[in-house]
Formats: sequence, C-alpha cells, structure tokens
Amino acid sequence: MDPFAFPPRTAALREKLLAFMDAAIYPNEERYIEEAAACPPWNSEEGWQGSGVVELLKPRARSQGLWNLFLPQSEHAPEGLTNYEYAPLAEIMGRVHWASEVFNCAAPDTGNMETIERYGTPEQKEQWLVPLLEGEIRSSFLMTEPDSASSDATNIECDIRRDGDEYVINGRKWWSTGAVSKRCKLFIVMGKTDRNADVHHQQSMILVPSDTPGCKVERNLTVFGYDHAPLGHGEVTLTDVRVPVGNLLLGEGRGFEIAQGRLGPGRIHHAMRSIGAAERALELMCRRLAERVTFGERIVDHSVWQERIAESRMMIDQARLLTLKAAWMMDTVGNKAAQAEIAMIKVVAPKVSTQVIDWAIQAHGGGGVAQDTPLPMMYADQRTLRIADGPDEVHRRSVAKLELRKQGIDPRPRR
Amino acid sequence: MDPFAFPPRTAALREKLLAFMDAAIYPNEERYIEEAAACPPWNSEEGWQGSGVVELLKPRARSQGLWNLFLPQSEHAPEGLTNYEYAPLAEIMGRVHWASEVFNCAAPDTGNMETIERYGTPEQKEQWLVPLLEGEIRSSFLMTEPDSASSDATNIECDIRRDGDEYVINGRKWWSTGAVSKRCKLFIVMGKTDRNADVHHQQSMILVPSDTPGCKVERNLTVFGYDHAPLGHGEVTLTDVRVPVGNLLLGEGRGFEIAQGRLGPGRIHHAMRSIGAAERALELMCRRLAERVTFGERIVDHSVWQERIAESRMMIDQARLLTLKAAWMMDTVGNKAAQAEIAMIKVVAPKVSTQVIDWAIQAHGGGGVAQDTPLPMMYADQRTLRIADGPDEVHRRSVAKLELRKQGIDPRPRR
Amino acid sequence: MDPFAFPPRTAALREKLLAFMDAAIYPNEERYIEEAAACPPWNSEEGWQGSGVVELLKPRARSQGLWNLFLPQSEHAPEGLTNYEYAPLAEIMGRVHWASEVFNCAAPDTGNMETIERYGTPEQKEQWLVPLLEGEIRSSFLMTEPDSASSDATNIECDIRRDGDEYVINGRKWWSTGAVSKRCKLFIVMGKTDRNADVHHQQSMILVPSDTPGCKVERNLTVFGYDHAPLGHGEVTLTDVRVPVGNLLLGEGRGFEIAQGRLGPGRIHHAMRSIGAAERALELMCRRLAERVTFGERIVDHSVWQERIAESRMMIDQARLLTLKAAWMMDTVGNKAAQAEIAMIKVVAPKVSTQVIDWAIQAHGGGGVAQDTPLPMMYADQRTLRIADGPDEVHRRSVAKLELRKQGIDPRPRR
Amino acid sequence: MDPFAFPPRTAALREKLLAFMDAAIYPNEERYIEEAAACPPWNSEEGWQGSGVVELLKPRARSQGLWNLFLPQSEHAPEGLTNYEYAPLAEIMGRVHWASEVFNCAAPDTGNMETIERYGTPEQKEQWLVPLLEGEIRSSFLMTEPDSASSDATNIECDIRRDGDEYVINGRKWWSTGAVSKRCKLFIVMGKTDRNADVHHQQSMILVPSDTPGCKVERNLTVFGYDHAPLGHGEVTLTDVRVPVGNLLLGEGRGFEIAQGRLGPGRIHHAMRSIGAAERALELMCRRLAERVTFGERIVDHSVWQERIAESRMMIDQARLLTLKAAWMMDTVGNKAAQAEIAMIKVVAPKVSTQVIDWAIQAHGGGGVAQDTPLPMMYADQRTLRIADGPDEVHRRSVAKLELRKQGIDPRPRR
Repeated sequence: MDPFAFPPRTAALREKLLAFMDAAIYPNEERYIEEAAACPPWNSEEGWQGSGVVELLKPRARSQGLWNLFLPQSEHAPEGLTNYEYAPLAEIMGRVHWASEVFNCAAPDTGNMETIERYGTPEQKEQWLVPLLEGEIRSSFLMTEPDSASSDATNIECDIRRDGDEYVINGRKWWSTGAVSKRCKLFIVMGKTDRNADVHHQQSMILVPSDTPGCKVERNLTVFGYDHAPLGHGEVTLTDVRVPVGNLLLGEGRGFEIAQGRLGPGRIHHAMRSIGAAERALELMCRRLAERVTFGERIVDHSVWQERIAESRMMIDQARLLTLKAAWMMDTVGNKAAQAEIAMIKVVAPKVSTQVIDWAIQAHGGGGVAQDTPLPMMYADQRTLRIADGPDEVHRRSVAKLELRKQGIDPRPRR
Repeated sequence: MDPFAFPPRTAALREKLLAFMDAAIYPNEERYIEEAAACPPWNSEEGWQGSGVVELLKPRARSQGLWNLFLPQSEHAPEGLTNYEYAPLAEIMGRVHWASEVFNCAAPDTGNMETIERYGTPEQKEQWLVPLLEGEIRSSFLMTEPDSASSDATNIECDIRRDGDEYVINGRKWWSTGAVSKRCKLFIVMGKTDRNADVHHQQSMILVPSDTPGCKVERNLTVFGYDHAPLGHGEVTLTDVRVPVGNLLLGEGRGFEIAQGRLGPGRIHHAMRSIGAAERALELMCRRLAERVTFGERIVDHSVWQERIAESRMMIDQARLLTLKAAWMMDTVGNKAAQAEIAMIKVVAPKVSTQVIDWAIQAHGGGGVAQDTPLPMMYADQRTLRIADGPDEVHRRSVAKLELRKQGIDPRPRR
Repeated sequence: MDPFAFPPRTAALREKLLAFMDAAIYPNEERYIEEAAACPPWNSEEGWQGSGVVELLKPRARSQGLWNLFLPQSEHAPEGLTNYEYAPLAEIMGRVHWASEVFNCAAPDTGNMETIERYGTPEQKEQWLVPLLEGEIRSSFLMTEPDSASSDATNIECDIRRDGDEYVINGRKWWSTGAVSKRCKLFIVMGKTDRNADVHHQQSMILVPSDTPGCKVERNLTVFGYDHAPLGHGEVTLTDVRVPVGNLLLGEGRGFEIAQGRLGPGRIHHAMRSIGAAERALELMCRRLAERVTFGERIVDHSVWQERIAESRMMIDQARLLTLKAAWMMDTVGNKAAQAEIAMIKVVAPKVSTQVIDWAIQAHGGGGVAQDTPLPMMYADQRTLRIADGPDEVHRRSVAKLELRKQGIDPRPRR
Repeated sequence: MDPFAFPPRTAALREKLLAFMDAAIYPNEERYIEEAAACPPWNSEEGWQGSGVVELLKPRARSQGLWNLFLPQSEHAPEGLTNYEYAPLAEIMGRVHWASEVFNCAAPDTGNMETIERYGTPEQKEQWLVPLLEGEIRSSFLMTEPDSASSDATNIECDIRRDGDEYVINGRKWWSTGAVSKRCKLFIVMGKTDRNADVHHQQSMILVPSDTPGCKVERNLTVFGYDHAPLGHGEVTLTDVRVPVGNLLLGEGRGFEIAQGRLGPGRIHHAMRSIGAAERALELMCRRLAERVTFGERIVDHSVWQERIAESRMMIDQARLLTLKAAWMMDTVGNKAAQAEIAMIKVVAPKVSTQVIDWAIQAHGGGGVAQDTPLPMMYADQRTLRIADGPDEVHRRSVAKLELRKQGIDPRPRR
C-alpha cells in the first residue's frame, strides 16, 4: 500500500466527484448566489425554503452514487467509507461552500445523522434518520448558548426536566446552523437533566421536532455581513417545550458521551473542507496574478507573490497530511487516542485557509472583497471556524496538555 | 512646546468631540444599524436616502463647532486646522464607522471639498462647494476602474473627449463610494483627455452632476457581505455623458497633479480613523475578556490574552506616532518631502487595525463575527483599506525605493 | 519647536559624532575583532585587559567633547543632556557594538555612574565615580542570579549580613557584564539585608571592590558562541566577602528603590542602540542586495526583498518614535508616569532589531552567519536583550496590566 | 500497511538507536563540548584531530548494527534502507548535533559516499569508499564559492582544465564542511571543465586528496560565534592542484547530473535532523518551563507558553509528515517527480526548527543563549540551513513555479 496515495475506493469516487464539480457545481455558482440574494426575509411568511439549484442537483448526484458518502459503514450504509477514505472527498466538496449539501454531506446534518445512527432507537431512526438520509428534511444541532463560554461545555444552562411522560425544555441557543430554514424539521438539543450529577453526567441530548410549540427562532445571525440564506445560523429559544420521554437519546446524563462520540468525524470533514477552500483560493490567486500586469510585468512574476504561492502550497500540503493522519488514527485506534491530532487539525486547517484566502483577496484587489469572487464569503466562513466548536485557544491548550503529559509533566500541578 | 502633547486647539476640540461621542454617537450605534438594515433595495424607486440619525445629529454637531474640522485654513475655513491638529480628531471619529459624516468630515466628500476648494473656479465653488460644506449634498469620486490595475493609475481608460462646448465622457468606474445614495449629487471623474500626451499629462478631472443623462449606477459592491447601506460603493457607467467645458477642473492634462495634491490629507484621515478603530476594538476586547470566565479564571488573566493586549497597545501607539509625524511633515515640508511617511502609514495603519480587530473578534467568540458587535464590519472596512487606493505591495515598493535612493542606490538600474 | 526634529544641542553633537564614526570607528572595526580574537584565555594570568583600539580612541573622543554624553545634568555634568537629547546619540553609537565605550557611554558603567552620582556619599563618589567618569576603570553590576527567575526580582537570594563595621556578602551572580575583564575594579552588588522586611525592602545595594577576597569569577558566559572578549559576561561567586559598612548605597532596604531609579535611562539607551543596530543592518542589507545578481537581475530589484526593506524602514521609524516619546516622558513626567512606554520599548526595540538583522543575514548568504559581517554578533546581542533585564513576556504583562487599569479593569480580581 | 506507522525495519532499528542515545550520546554531551573547547587552534601544528568521544563510541555503534544506516541498498549495503525507512532514524540522530558521526551517518561524508558508490569506478571505490564506510577517514564537498551567489549554481567559477594525464584545478571554495579537520582526506570538487558547453554541461566533479600540493585551507568560518571544532567549515583555495585524469567522476560535463543525483537524500537527512533538533528543543522547553516558578505559578501553566508548546507540536508533526512524503516519493517515483516536495522540506524544516529553538531559548532565560544549553548552537546550525544549499527564497521560487505549471500557467511568459 502506498501511504501517500488515495485508497482505491476513494480514487474511484474522486474521479466521479471531480467530474461532477466541473459539470454541475462550478457552473452553478453564480446561480446559487443569485437565488440566495433573492430569498425573502427569513422571518417572512414564506421564509427560507432551501436552494433551488441544490435540490435540482441532488438526484443527479445520487444517481451517480455520490450520496451520503460521509456515512461510516453501518446498517444504513453497508458500503460506508472510513474517515480516511472519505476525507479526500470532503476536501473537494469544500471547494464550493454549498456543494456538500448536493451530496447530502452537509453539516450539521451529517453529525446529526451519525448521532441518530449510533445512539438512536429503531423508532427514532425510522422517524428521523430515514428522511435525513433521503435528503428530504434538514436538521439543526442546538448546543452553543449565547450566555455561556462555548469553550467550556460544562457551562451549558439549557434545562431539560422530566415531567411525567414528557421532558420540558427551557433554554436559549445560538449558532444553530440551519435552524432558520423552513426545511429544518428536527433539532437535537443538548441540556441539563441533572445539575447534581458529576460534571460530565449532568447533560443529555434530546430530539425536538422544530415545530413543537415553544420553539422559536429569534433571529438569524450574520457572519461578517453574510446572512447565509437560505440556511442561516439561528438564535433559538425553547420555552416550556414538551416532547415525549422517548425522544431522549441514549439515556439521561449521557449527553457528554454522545457529544464526544460525534465530535471526531465532524472535525475531519471541516478540516478537509477548509483545505479544499484553501486549494480553491490558491487556484483563483494564481490565475488572477497571471492575468494582471503592472509596471510592465505580470504580477505572478513578482517574487513577493511567488513567495506567497509557495507558502500556500507548503501550508496546504502539510495541513492535509496531518488531517489524513488524524482520520487514519480515528479509524484505527479511535477518537481517544487521536485526540491530539483532532485538536491540532481544528486549529491548523482554518488557520491555513484564512491565510491563503486572505492572500487571494489581496491578489484580486477590489474584487477580492466584493461579490465578484467567492473569496470574502470563504474568508468569513473559515474565520468563523477558528471560533466555532471551541476557539483556537482551547484546542491549543489541549494539545499542550497532551504534550506535557507525554513528557511526564503533569499539566496542572497539585497545589 | 511638548512634542507629544495635543496642540492647544486640538486639545479643546478633542474634549468637545469626546463628549459628543459619549452623548450622541455611541448611544445611537444600534439605531444606525437598524436604519441601515431597514433600507429598501438600493435600486428600488425610493433607493437609499441617507441615514436619519446622521441627519438628526448634524445640526447638533455643527452648533458645537464640530463641523468641517478637516478643512485646512482657507477662505471657507479661516480657522482651519493643520493636518497635525486635525489628526487626533479624525482618530476619535474613526471609533464609529459612520461618525465622521455627522461632523461633515466623511470621505469621499472631504477629499472632494478640498479638491474644489483648491482647484475650483468661483462658479464651481458656488455651485458645489457651498452645499457640500453645508452638508446638504454628498459626492463621489470616480477614479478606480474594474478593468485596470488600480495600483498603476496610468492604466485608467475612461475617456473624456471635447466636443464643442462640452466634454463627452465614456467609461466604467467602480468603488465609487457614496455614488449609490440618492443624496449623492456630484461625481468627480478622472479620465483621459489626451492619450498622446506624456504619461502624467493624459488625464483630467471633471465635475459631473450625478443626474446627467448617461450616468448609471450599475450595481452596489458588497464588502465581505456588507452592502454599506445607505452609502454603498457603486459600479458606475458613463455613456456619452455630456457636461459643459466649464466643468473641467484646473485644465486639461492636470488630473494627475490634482490627484497628487488631494492625496496626502486623505491618507492622514484614513490612517487616524484606522487607529481610532483599533483603539475601539482594543477597548471592546479588554471589556469582554474581563467579563468572561472559563475554567475558573477570567480570560483577561490568561497570559496569552495579556500578550495580545500589550501587542495591540504597542502597535497602536507606534502607528499613531508615525501618522502624526507624517501629518507634521505634510504641514511643514509638504507632501513631496513626506512621501515615504505617507506611504508608510497607508500600509501600517490598516495592518494594525485589522490585527487588533481580529484579536477582538476572537475574544468575543461567536458574537465577534455576528451583528452583536461592530467588529466584523470594522474588519471588513479596514481589510479593504489594504487594497483601496493602491494595495500594500505598491506602497511598500515605494518605501523601498525611497530607502534605496537615500542610500545612494538607484532602485532601477539602467540596463 | 519642531516635535520631530533633533533638539539643538543634539543636532550639533550628532554631526560631530557621525563624523567621528566615519573617521575613527568604522575603519577600526576589523582591528577590534582581531584584537578580541587575539585575547588570551580570560582565566589566564594576563586575562582580558580591555581593547587597545578603544583606549586609543578615547582621548580623541574626549577632546571633541564626545565624552560622558549619557550623564544627565548634575554637579559632574553641568551641561548634561536630557534623555530626549541623548537618545539620538545613543542610536548612532549603537551602530557598532563596541563604540559606546569610546565615548565612556557603555553599559553597565553608565548605569553604575548614574547610581553613584545619584545615591552615593561624597566619599563613594570621590573613590569610584571620578575614575569611572575619567574612563580609567570599569565596573560591573551584580544583580541577576542563576538560580532565581530574573523576571521576578524579589527572588534574589544573595545575602548581605551586617557583622560589626562590615557587611559580609555571600551569593552567586551571573550575566555580570564586564566582570571578567581585568580592568573592572568595582562591583555593585544587590542582595538581601533583611528577609523579614516587606518584599520591597529586603534588598540593598553595596559597593564591592572587585579584588576583595572572596570575589571570584567562575566562568565567562558565551552568547551564541561569542565570548565577548575582552569584556565578557561573568558568573561570579561571593564567598564571605567583607566590605566596610560605609560601602552601602543609600541605606539598608533601599536596593529596590535604587534599582527602580536606575532603570529608566538604561532602557532608553539600550532601545536606541538597538535601533542603531537595526539601521546598520538595513544599510548593509541594501548594499549587499544591490551588488548581487541572480538569474539576470539584481536581488534588490526582487519585490520580496523590497518588501523587507520597506518593512524594516516602517518598523525602525515607529520604534524610534516610541522610544523618543518614552525619553521625553521620563524627562518631563518621570519614570513612573512613563512606565508603560518604558516597558514597551524594552520589547519593541530588540524585536525590531532582531528581525531586521535576520533579514540582513539572509541577504548576505553564507557570509551573513560568519565572521565576514558584524551581523551574527549583532543578532546574538540583540536576541539576548529579549531576555536580559526581564524577558519580553514580563514586560508585555506589565503593559497589559497598565492598559487594563486605564480601562477601569482590575488586572487581578480579588477572589 | 499502516501509512503512519514506522516500517518494520525502521521500528526495530529505532528501538536500538533510542537506547543508544540514552546510554551513550546524551551522557557524553558535556564531554563533547569540553573536548571541542580544548581543541588547539585549527591552524596550529596539531590542528583538529576529530572528537575523542565520537571515535570511542563508533565501535560500539557499529557492533550494534547502527552503522552506515543512511546507505541505500547496493553492493556495499545489501541490506540498505530506503529513504523512507532511514528518515525516522536521521531524526533521532539530529537530536544531538554530533551524534550522526558516531553512526557514520554524518554530512558531508554521507553525500560523498553515495556519490562515489553511485558514480565511482571500482578503483575510486576501493581507494575512497571503503575507508569512508569504515569511518577511518572523512571527506569534504567543495562546491560553494564566496564570489558567486550560491543560489544559482551556474555561477560557479572554479576551473578544472585538462593537461595531459592530469587535471589542473584552480578556484576558491568556502563552506567546505569538515575540510579544516586533519582527518579529512578527500575533497570532492565541483568546477568547470568546459565554459563553452551549454549551461548544464560545463561542470564536472573530481576527487582530490586533501594533501595534494596547492590545496590550502585559508581559514575556518565561524557560525554565529561557533568555530565548530573539531570539524569546522573551511575556506579552501586550490592553486594549480594536479590530479590524475582517473580522478574525474563519471565524465566531463556531468557535474550537474551528479549534483542533482546526490541532492535528494541529503535533503531528507537534513530535514529529518532539523525535526529531531526541534523535538529536542521542545522537550528542553517543556522541562524548563515546568521547573520554573514566577509570581506563584509554574511558567508551564501560563497560557502564552502552552500556546507555544502546541504550535511547536503542530509545526513539527506537519513538517515530519511532509518530509516522509518526500522520502517516499523519492523512493517510489524518483527525485524528479518529488522536486516540489524536496524543495518544500528544504524550506519548512529549518523554519520550524529555528522557531521552536528560539522559543526554547526564551524559555531558558540567560542560560538559553549561553553554553549551559545546546540551544544557541542548535539555533546557529539551523539558521544556517536556511541559507546553505540555496537560500529559502530560491526554493520557494521553485515551489511557486512548479505550482504555476501544475495550473497551466507558464511561470515565465515569453515576451
């Protein structure tokens, strides 16, 4: 086996995926933007109904076998790919910010599907997993809260209280990606069922149909100036929301355990998509620099730009190798043994992508910050990833502590 | 004289300005955002009519003598401040992106007013300078073009051809700040009157009423997703636009000369506003870090954040001193002798502000990229300044060449 | 007064100093290196006797009035310069690492002279200040200790115990610059006289003739391989060293007070010399790049190098302005009010100089790290300044705390 | 096969090597330094005779099979390792700057042995390769010249002229590592045999016994302040040096071809040793930070240092993966196909190591720049690697050009 070549199944799917990108994604980039711009206000009667072009392309993708590729081997995906096999495909999808959904491989649905697949009851799977796998509905993950530092998950305040055969949920969540869309039918909510339990067993996860009374999307969060229509990031309140006890996932107090289990694959997907975005930006940068002449010379021939092209290539290639290593470790020795690598790619990948995109913006001049290129939206997305799911600082701290432990140093001395 | 103290007139105005900011600007930040969000589409019938809150505050600012402070001593401003005196006031206005207009000190009107003041005929002044100084109308500066590298102004393609008593103008401009607003009544257009003249005498500047037939705002450019309503950045076409010959500024072939003359003060204003934005971001960052506790410690007590606070302070103070030096030199020895310093602050100030704002974003977590803080818009604006009016690379190149010359090295060897 | 011009006395001395550098310092650089290389082992019989070329040039410098310029106005220096006036002269001296001594302006003698001048008795001045001012002897300052973190001066362990009419001193010091030289006749030693006093009154400073029994230079510390002959940095043990009680400076428990008082001017001198070193490196870099041709083009015409030249100029000019501001504040409002600025230049100046020197090394290729240029020794010296007298981290922490306090945030919350 | 695990042979040798480092290398570090410091002047009668401790350890290393591991499979090394297999072993050796020689794996001998093995005649092998493989003699590679930019090898000026049965060599070389030592018996010299040939066929390589009349070591180059005794870097003149025609390698005009062939493996070795140095520095940094307490807290618990530890780990792991990929490609698809990767690791590895070592220096305070730690010498060595064998700028340029070509952009337009 060639350690640096694509695994056989990946190689085959990659060809198909690249062809699909060329045939159906890139040519529709402008259309997607136009559709998004034409969306009515998110809080209007009609609201956001999803993207026409994405819906149009889904059957085509599915018919080519480019569907649910993210899903690991299981009952629903007997041919499921490993993380290591899927990663290079996620990279390619990451080249266009809306492409993943065409292949039913978009966050947060991917993580939600994995969660239900792994921890759900047969009834929960029947009700929610099937339509999600079909791409018929979308879902949102309600974890982060505006009033507690997302870097410390034990801070979560959302309340899930049992009352007879029901759970009553009260809380305020934000950065609930997708929750603003009318197509979002399911919320997976993290909250506390027992504040007296030890710190890692206070929390539970529960399935909440998005139309349950008491669920309210308060507003759509913008990212830099983007509203991310027709998907959006919601701030959602849950006020005396009641769902049957059967909606609980896995059991009371097991929310942390589920969160941990769901964590790894998403990190791989995000990191690889970041790398894909960086590759795209590098490509756009090179082309632009080759077209532009100032003071009698193509800009691409200026050494200052060649330095940046080279630095981009070096950063991207290194980040990809690290991510693939993390994926391989997850597949072979598990999330726990791979925790340093998973934390590292969380930091490294968006750091690389924001830097490369920033240079690409600079290379494009005025068009680099405007709607003429996908670059400013790419920057906004990638910049957000340095905050989402724990800021860089938290992950670097984890990496440092694992390093110290490896060297026999207790990261926090007993005092 | 204390070289590091505020000049007396500045000190007095500064107190008044700071009080005004506290009393009238900061409390209206949310309102401004709401008004901007409620603007109808720029290209609707009604269009963008300017900001209500700005109009409301203008008379109040004016009544306190906080009006047209940017304007150097002249017939219209017998009490005019020097660049060195005005600079610290521009910094304060820069703390809120829309504040300058309240004091009739906003670009591009400031540069346009200076241009007409310095180079206009009495008739031109009567018609355009007076209402601009009154804050009754606004104006736009049409220089940059989408199809020519803005880093090399000789590339400009817009055509200004004499035809009898009129000039006929044809061209495409973009990044015409303010042109999208209905309140914008005047375009100052740069174009070529003689392509056979030597490279620095081909260009002219001309006054074009924005409602002249043939002027068309094609679209509004977004900046990282922001539409900058109700001001905007226009892409404007000029198709057989006819204006009387009397609208020419200074004379045919003198466009470059005017552009040079107008250049310096604007650079000071921009740099000081960038510094003001950086100060604001630093303040927001410190406050946020002091409020937030993770793992039992205020984030502001983490050394990694104290390092960033310190680096911010060091960068800001240095950039301010350099900008003040540039302003002083402009006032005393002129733009030409100050050209290295002017080029340096063009690079340094937005570099500092983008870095400090980026840290502030990180300190705020999710709110740092969303509409909950002014930070992402500040970032978008400051990032754009590294491209606008010539990208960093061009200005660093100028600095390097001046340095080499100083050391007796001919920057371009004859071959 | 022109806030950005040299003060009149500085301007006059500067001309003389520049001429002296050209006539007598630069032409002797190679000779100094050769003499240094020819020094016998520091611990041989003969030991290090100082530099011949420096001694040769001293009378010449003195005869031109370029002598003891560092000394502030006082009985011994009725014409003394302010810090603000002296700073630009220190910069010039800093261009060659051994030049300051020629003008009797070299550390640590400067600090030691100021200390005795300000805090010494008439007898102490007669015995030590006079020969130091004459440049007849040299001195060392014994503060830092190998076993205690230099970033926290309260850690100092050296013991000074009164025994009748004498003090008995026991301790181990290192980085005692100049102590290795045979010409060093005086140690100023910091140690604890009372471990029961409050933390800032445990320490005292005392004058110790270097030939007192019990004083022993254990070794010479190298700096990136340089032994810094004939000056050196000593590790010194003091074993039952006895000196008369009259040798104590100012009084028991006042060591901290003296250390504070001596602190500021030295920081200005160091920062300005760092800036001088950076200017020298930039000059060497530009010349080298202009001489060298690869792939048919002078390297100086490559944009990547022009970027570095420009960045160097921007960093240097900003650091200089900040240092001058710190000097001005020290002169006018005192060390205490200037503490943020003094901490900032401690960080900024060597950061700038190491970066510029590093680029200059890169520009020189192999010669850049070898004895063919002064660059690697300059790098070693400047890199050390980021550690000496408190590492960067400590000073950034101070800057951050002052910033927080300014914003009404208590840097350490009461718990 | 596990793509991220050590290959089986590597795993076994690695255990032995790690044990050897623990048992025999680290415990002798101080002794090596002392021996080096006690060397007589390089140009004295006795000169530099090599390191006693290295000679002492060689038989021990050899007896354990830790000998000539660098050598690829061949007649002399039937069990030779691939580059991919050897790389992790080079990393370990790189943890101590003199360790490689103990295993007969030190540059420049490794490159010289490979060269003779691959291109030498049986007689050349018998005379030189055998004693080199036995570790009985050492050798030097004379390529770089002081008067030509090393970044453009076609600039080489050394003259090799045929005269009957001899070649007559005239030139000046520098950075001839090892040439200063008395144990160096062989020079491999690159020079021009035909200035009229096309640019890549003017050069040849030739074997020159170091005691041939006309060979003279003019001086030893220092690196920062290190003389690198007892090895050194020589500046060597060749004046009418005559050797038999049989000493030519491969054939006239084939010097470039040999240089290319020899290039790759050395790059892998250097990069991996840099990574080893970085790992060592990280380890020293962590230990030191854990021992030191300031302001009541271990320094290792400060987040600013945890950030640096994490950044170090991320940079090191990424650089290692990239180097292993380059090694794998060299083994499987050859130097040519791997040229981008080889150029990238040339830039990346010493960039990482200098950064990590610099942080480690800072963590150590005064001891970090002095002889108390191996860090300043490690810094000096690694910094030099950013210049040696072509400066970073040249390699980044190569990477950029390959990138552009990959994207269908001709890196130099025809004009």
